[in-house]
Amino acid sequence: MITIYKNEGGSTQIVDRVDPAWIQPGSGVSVWVDLDQPTPEESRVLSDVFQFHELAIEDALSELHHPKIESYGDYLYLILHGIDFSASEHCFTTKDIDFFLGAQFLVTVHPGVSRSIGKIGAVCSRDARILGEGPGMLLYRIIDTMVDNYRPEVEKLSERLDELEDEVFEKPNTQLARLILNFKKDISSLRQVVLPQRDAVGRLARREFPLISEQLAYGFRDVHDHLVRLSDEAMFFQDRITSILDAHLSAVSNQLNQVMKVLTIIATLFMPLTVLTGVYGMNVPLPHLPGGERAQFWWILGMMLAMSGTMLVYFRRKHWI
Amino acid sequence: MITIYKNEGGSTQIVDRVDPAWIQPGSGVSVWVDLDQPTPEESRVLSDVFQFHELAIEDALSELHHPKIESYGDYLYLILHGIDFSASEHCFTTKDIDFFLGAQFLVTVHPGVSRSIGKIGAVCSRDARILGEGPGMLLYRIIDTMVDNYRPEVEKLSERLDELEDEVFEKPNTQLARLILNFKKDISSLRQVVLPQRDAVGRLARREFPLISEQLAYGFRDVHDHLVRLSDEAMFFQDRITSILDAHLSAVSNQLNQVMKVLTIIATLFMPLTVLTGVYGMNVPLPHLPGGERAQFWWILGMMLAMSGTMLVYFRRKHWI
Amino acid sequence: MITIYKNEGGSTQIVDRVDPAWIQPGSGVSVWVDLDQPTPEESRVLSDVFQFHELAIEDALSELHHPKIESYGDYLYLILHGIDFSASEHCFTTKDIDFFLGAQFLVTVHPGVSRSIGKIGAVCSRDARILGEGPGMLLYRIIDTMVDNYRPEVEKLSERLDELEDEVFEKPNTQLARLILNFKKDISSLRQVVLPQRDAVGRLARREFPLISEQLAYGFRDVHDHLVRLSDEAMFFQDRITSILDAHLSAVSNQLNQVMKVLTIIATLFMPLTVLTGVYGMNVPLPHLPGGERAQFWWILGMMLAMSGTMLVYFRRKHWI
Amino acid sequence: MITIYKNEGGSTQIVDRVDPAWIQPGSGVSVWVDLDQPTPEESRVLSDVFQFHELAIEDALSELHHPKIESYGDYLYLILHGIDFSASEHCFTTKDIDFFLGAQFLVTVHPGVSRSIGKIGAVCSRDARILGEGPGMLLYRIIDTMVDNYRPEVEKLSERLDELEDEVFEKPNTQLARLILNFKKDISSLRQVVLPQRDAVGRLARREFPLISEQLAYGFRDVHDHLVRLSDEAMFFQDRITSILDAHLSAVSNQLNQVMKVLTIIATLFMPLTVLTGVYGMNVPLPHLPGGERAQFWWILGMMLAMSGTMLVYFRRKHWI
Amino acid sequence: MITIYKNEGGSTQIVDRVDPAWIQPGSGVSVWVDLDQPTPEESRVLSDVFQFHELAIEDALSELHHPKIESYGDYLYLILHGIDFSASEHCFTTKDIDFFLGAQFLVTVHPGVSRSIGKIGAVCSRDARILGEGPGMLLYRIIDTMVDNYRPEVEKLSERLDELEDEVFEKPNTQLARLILNFKKDISSLRQVVLPQRDAVGRLARREFPLISEQLAYGFRDVHDHLVRLSDEAMFFQDRITSILDAHLSAVSNQLNQVMKVLTIIATLFMPLTVLTGVYGMNVPLPHLPGGERAQFWWILGMMLAMSGTMLVYFRRKHWI
Repeated sequence: MITIYKNEGGSTQIVDRVDPAWIQPGSGVSVWVDLDQPTPEESRVLSDVFQFHELAIEDALSELHHPKIESYGDYLYLILHGIDFSASEHCFTTKDIDFFLGAQFLVTVHPGVSRSIGKIGAVCSRDARILGEGPGMLLYRIIDTMVDNYRPEVEKLSERLDELEDEVFEKPNTQLARLILNFKKDISSLRQVVLPQRDAVGRLARREFPLISEQLAYGFRDVHDHLVRLSDEAMFFQDRITSILDAHLSAVSNQLNQVMKVLTIIATLFMPLTVLTGVYGMNVPLPHLPGGERAQFWWILGMMLAMSGTMLVYFRRKHWI
Repeated sequence: MITIYKNEGGSTQIVDRVDPAWIQPGSGVSVWVDLDQPTPEESRVLSDVFQFHELAIEDALSELHHPKIESYGDYLYLILHGIDFSASEHCFTTKDIDFFLGAQFLVTVHPGVSRSIGKIGAVCSRDARILGEGPGMLLYRIIDTMVDNYRPEVEKLSERLDELEDEVFEKPNTQLARLILNFKKDISSLRQVVLPQRDAVGRLARREFPLISEQLAYGFRDVHDHLVRLSDEAMFFQDRITSILDAHLSAVSNQLNQVMKVLTIIATLFMPLTVLTGVYGMNVPLPHLPGGERAQFWWILGMMLAMSGTMLVYFRRKHWI
Repeated sequence: MITIYKNEGGSTQIVDRVDPAWIQPGSGVSVWVDLDQPTPEESRVLSDVFQFHELAIEDALSELHHPKIESYGDYLYLILHGIDFSASEHCFTTKDIDFFLGAQFLVTVHPGVSRSIGKIGAVCSRDARILGEGPGMLLYRIIDTMVDNYRPEVEKLSERLDELEDEVFEKPNTQLARLILNFKKDISSLRQVVLPQRDAVGRLARREFPLISEQLAYGFRDVHDHLVRLSDEAMFFQDRITSILDAHLSAVSNQLNQVMKVLTIIATLFMPLTVLTGVYGMNVPLPHLPGGERAQFWWILGMMLAMSGTMLVYFRRKHWI
Repeated sequence: MITIYKNEGGSTQIVDRVDPAWIQPGSGVSVWVDLDQPTPEESRVLSDVFQFHELAIEDALSELHHPKIESYGDYLYLILHGIDFSASEHCFTTKDIDFFLGAQFLVTVHPGVSRSIGKIGAVCSRDARILGEGPGMLLYRIIDTMVDNYRPEVEKLSERLDELEDEVFEKPNTQLARLILNFKKDISSLRQVVLPQRDAVGRLARREFPLISEQLAYGFRDVHDHLVRLSDEAMFFQDRITSILDAHLSAVSNQLNQVMKVLTIIATLFMPLTVLTGVYGMNVPLPHLPGGERAQFWWILGMMLAMSGTMLVYFRRKHWI
Repeated sequence: MITIYKNEGGSTQIVDRVDPAWIQPGSGVSVWVDLDQPTPEESRVLSDVFQFHELAIEDALSELHHPKIESYGDYLYLILHGIDFSASEHCFTTKDIDFFLGAQFLVTVHPGVSRSIGKIGAVCSRDARILGEGPGMLLYRIIDTMVDNYRPEVEKLSERLDELEDEVFEKPNTQLARLILNFKKDISSLRQVVLPQRDAVGRLARREFPLISEQLAYGFRDVHDHLVRLSDEAMFFQDRITSILDAHLSAVSNQLNQVMKVLTIIATLFMPLTVLTGVYGMNVPLPHLPGGERAQFWWILGMMLAMSGTMLVYFRRKHWI
């Protein structure tokens, strides 16, 4: 689907096609072309009207690209990643949005609905001033919205980390190790996606490209700041998940310790008793304990209790029970 | 709450409002505006009188920002973190204090009482010379106090580390692993907070901004030095806590070793005895041992003691007991 | 085998020998000399006709070189690694392809058939325009094809990683540790091969050499981008395989836990019963339990069941069974 | 204690006070002021005569500072750490020595006796040429001696590492883990102290300060070289101690393995025998083995030996015994 | 021993002493002075004739120096490390060779026989052209030979790594952990020696010193390349040995698992049997099983087999046997 917003002389309209004259520097027109899962027909506008470099168009139409920014002389080509809200609840995925920024135009290409672009698009139709501030400002607004969408996802990851940490100490099991592993992958994805975005937006904030005005740079500096914070958090999460895996190993070892203590206590209590009953079961004359025939049993029972009692005192001393 | 200190012609007064004329470069007036949890009403001074950049004001009024320094032309915007003394004893937390430094003014914004600012504020009211040295010197004094407040917290962390280390070897248990994990989080927080502050103050110390005089830079170099030391210590702590976790794992394994040795000793001592008593309990004629009927029992007892003795010698040789 | 493609005035021919006049800058001729496992005879063209530096020729004819790029004044010497499809299925190997790029010529040297060169060679014979675009463009096409060949190999590694991860949790065993180790070596090889290639192509993309036109640089920037992505993936894989090894250790420990629980349950259930039967097997008068002679056995059986039942309740509480 | 060495016209004297005229650049006098644990009275020379910056004096008189070098215009302020020979044998500690270097003077401040300064001071009194070479050369001599003092300490650490390594394999125990932990702390201290010294002396060697002549820089380059070597060794030690901790964990696990093998062998040997004797102890008619009544026992004994023998052969096969 | 090669007017002679006139820039003479374990007498040539800097001579005559390169104006001082072939087979050691390179001379100092220098020396005596190419070319030839000598040592390390890897999985034991530890030390030594050499030769290759001609730089670039490869391999080895240690820990844990499974199987098989025989050994009237007196035993035997069979089926299901 293709949507074209055109701002000229203070009013914004949605138009059908782009006039090549509009996109000449100094034309006084601001154009925003949004390509949402474009058909080959629709995507022809990139080469025919805007005459973007063939390799940039190829990248924009394919998927699976890393965030980056590239200058092609009069225009910038930028790939960023937005949260993929259509993905499953339990994992962190993103999809790439491509931007072409010129003096008079912004072109956005994305594979399917994007919340941030939808939101800015709606504002744009209502409020003529938005596009009137120029395509750079528009780009800033979209990126700002995209980066803000990371916040709730990162909060979710943080909560899941807290839960994992509790679980590790409460009921360590193999399934948990698997959860931890999956979690690590999510955090790696977050880092892999945030770091190059931070660098790309950082280049905008440092005004490496003449297209970016000083006023605009303050905005990108703010977005860059949010991305720095996100990447710091990703690194912090990675640190925590590694510690959690270590703690898990420690918890499993401790559990083994507990099991072995039970076994050792049981064996230590009952083995001597077995030998004692064995002795009195032998078919040889045994020395008589004091008292009559009937007292024998109680003597033996006494010995058994004494032995068990001694053991229990020993274990208590060792803080095993 | 808003407090405004004004120094002009050698005397410092607390005034009600800021005259825009005072903050013009070369006005000869030094102004310090302190906003403590400002109401929306109070915070309007930032935009109306000082005309700070909208994004900087937004950052200053919200929380959860990383330490950073940014130049907006005539003024600097600085975020630092002070120790949060209102937080629980057992964890390390900080809160951010925001600074706007101009040629004639310093504006501080903080969410709730700050010890450092309270202290400098008190001095400022008593001693006119403090504000008379200019807003840059005032900023240095506040930052110096803030950074000095880290020292006791870091000492506390260091002591807790020593305690943990002792405990790991004395009574390893799962609860300890949890403590270690929490500790790691505290140390990570310390690093996350100190590192960007070190870099921000480092930029002041290297005089990257024309607002900072050479004399002032010597002061910031000193603060920077303290922050370098703090960040070195944070890294050293991180190293130690990792070693402690490793030592904990080793202690748990050793404990298991001890438990297993007890079990093995018990089993090895009593199992042969069980077999021996079993043999003499069999309902088949057994070969007579030398001596009469009554001697049989003593012979068996002798065999038992001999077997146990041999085992004990063996264990002693292996240094198990 | 030596193949020489010559393009002059819009048509491409395969010729027998290289005329030194063709390779003079500004000759208007584009020459591509491909040396596939050259005989000493064939490789003499490098020194006699092209007069390359002796050390570069030595490197080109020997194997086992790391990817690199070097400028020798009028020509560039480049070593890259292509996937070695002749190698075994189960491991990742590459072979080096050497390039000499001049203003009018491209020389490629490789030890045995190369898919990428074969493919471009076939296109070159059919389509005169390919070589007509100049040797730089030809180099770009070959490198682009070589780097695209990494993609399926990387996907294969990714799938094997997923399989390993499943296996670790399903049936941990020593053999698995060995697989993980071998896998790590493959990933290291991938990194070792991709990283220097990324840097070499990056230097082409940044136009560090005057031979590379701006148009060509856009192409190399694209290839560089793919190599950046490959090296990111290699690092991500390395991270994952390390986590898998950790998870493997955790799984083995958990398995031990399970085994020990079975042992402890068995011992705890049966040891007390042994003592009980031992007591009733003693050759001393035992106190009579209520009921007649025949009731004794059922009393004892009842005691046994009660003891076992208590134990089972205890284990259930501890979530062992 | 304060000692003042003054060199003028080829002779060195110990004098009582410093004449401010001497320390003017180009005065032709070389002065060395050594402050050993100075009283507040003595330390006043720093501010009154030399007029050093207040913050530098504060640093010089307090302790616990990291090595660093700072330029204050006409003079350099340098903090280095010397081995603290007064500390306990079993741990690595250092104390800081502060230097102020000007064109005509060197001021040293240290908390208590310093071997290096004592040594150079003794030479200085005897040999007038030493101070005659200027304060820079004197600084070089002191630093050179200080750095040379690290060598035996590092050798001691290296020997302790070798011992630890032997012990880990000979008698692994928890106490060892503690030793390893303490050792790690010592190595960390070494690194923490050597690294910033290396960087500070490196800045002297690279002649970043105009006070350092080319001839002097050769000397500092040599000291820098020794510090590079020390920091390399510290890193190497850190690597080794980490490996030793890993090896310790492996040794503990192996020990557990040995214990468990003993237990398993004992249990496997005696459990079947217990069952056999139990069978022949049952109060039911048992099938007669061939031979008379008396042969029964020997048959049973034979069965026991056969069972034990089979087990032993099995264990031997598994390389357990 | 001192050997002096002099080349003048196309012929090379071995001479007795060095004429200071020869070593003046532009003298047209090339001199190579080789000092093999020089006596104090012989080493005086360094200071008397060449007038090298005192600290460089001190370094050259002592041992235990890290590879480095330093410029002293008209001459370069270079320390490299060659393989020490006189050392034991089982560990990796090197010895340092010192070079002084001037416009007309090369001085080499080494503690005892060096294979590379011996080899180049022999060639030099036979072929006048070698020294005729100038001292820089001679230096390149010696370094090239030295670096080539690393190759077989590295191959040996690689083979030992493969062997270790096999052993870890075949027979894990504590001795192996020790071997791994020693191996790590060798790899660390390799890295410690190769990395600074790579950097030193890199500086020659980048022509940081005017003494190095462009032609010579191509040669050093080639040597640098070999050193880069060596340092990459050292890092790769370090990675592998760490994985091997991890795998060793995993193998030891697995072995423990196996031992514990045997114990559990034995205990689970025989404990119930013990209880059963205990029951039939009790001195109380037991309920009669169907059939006559003699059938009782066979009933019991049947119960025993049924119990054991059930257990074995259970273990088979769990894949323990």
